[in-house]
Amino acid sequence: MKTYGLRCPIARTLDLIGERWTLLMLRDLFVHGERRFQDFQSSLEGISPTTLTQRLRQLEEAKIVARRAHAESPPRVTYSLTPKGRELGPIIRSLREWGSRHAQRP
Amino acid sequence: MKTYGLRCPIARTLDLIGERWTLLMLRDLFVHGERRFQDFQSSLEGISPTTLTQRLRQLEEAKIVARRAHAESPPRVTYSLTPKGRELGPIIRSLREWGSRHAQRP
Repeated sequence: MKTYGLRCPIARTLDLIGERWTLLMLRDLFVHGERRFQDFQSSLEGISPTTLTQRLRQLEEAKIVARRAHAESPPRVTYSLTPKGRELGPIIRSLREWGSRHAQRP
Repeated sequence: MKTYGLRCPIARTLDLIGERWTLLMLRDLFVHGERRFQDFQSSLEGISPTTLTQRLRQLEEAKIVARRAHAESPPRVTYSLTPKGRELGPIIRSLREWGSRHAQRP
């Protein structure tokens, strides 16, 4: 992971969530609550399994996302936002609002 | 530029401002109003001139940043936010607020 290593709080936030795909993964968690690995794969067209694994691990380490292994057969693993992760809500909302107003459809 | 090519407004916003360095450049413009090329270089330690040139061009094309060549000697070129760019304020603010609360200093 390439961090900015700057003291500015904006740069520090981006060190944790600024990499490609991460904000879209967070969006999915805000919309759906709980997600499995394969749910991310189907909504994020183009993400590689390696990248997805790495991003999930980074978010877990930053305590933004919690991983839960359900005691079921077959075993099921889900990801959801922690309280710290849910506080990213205003960032996701402001990105959505600006995009709805200003970013044209491709 | 690697775009997501998704219809979601969050992804469309990130297609314009989600690349490495771009949000920190916007932060500088919010803080200082007007910036020259070399101002960005001195505040964004580690950015290459090529990357900075490319990011500025992308922001100009998206009409987020306006470039102004001042009729002075020696000539001076400055960059500032357009009205569309200034509406990115809530994104910058929410990134700063979350970082101040949750992202530890390196």
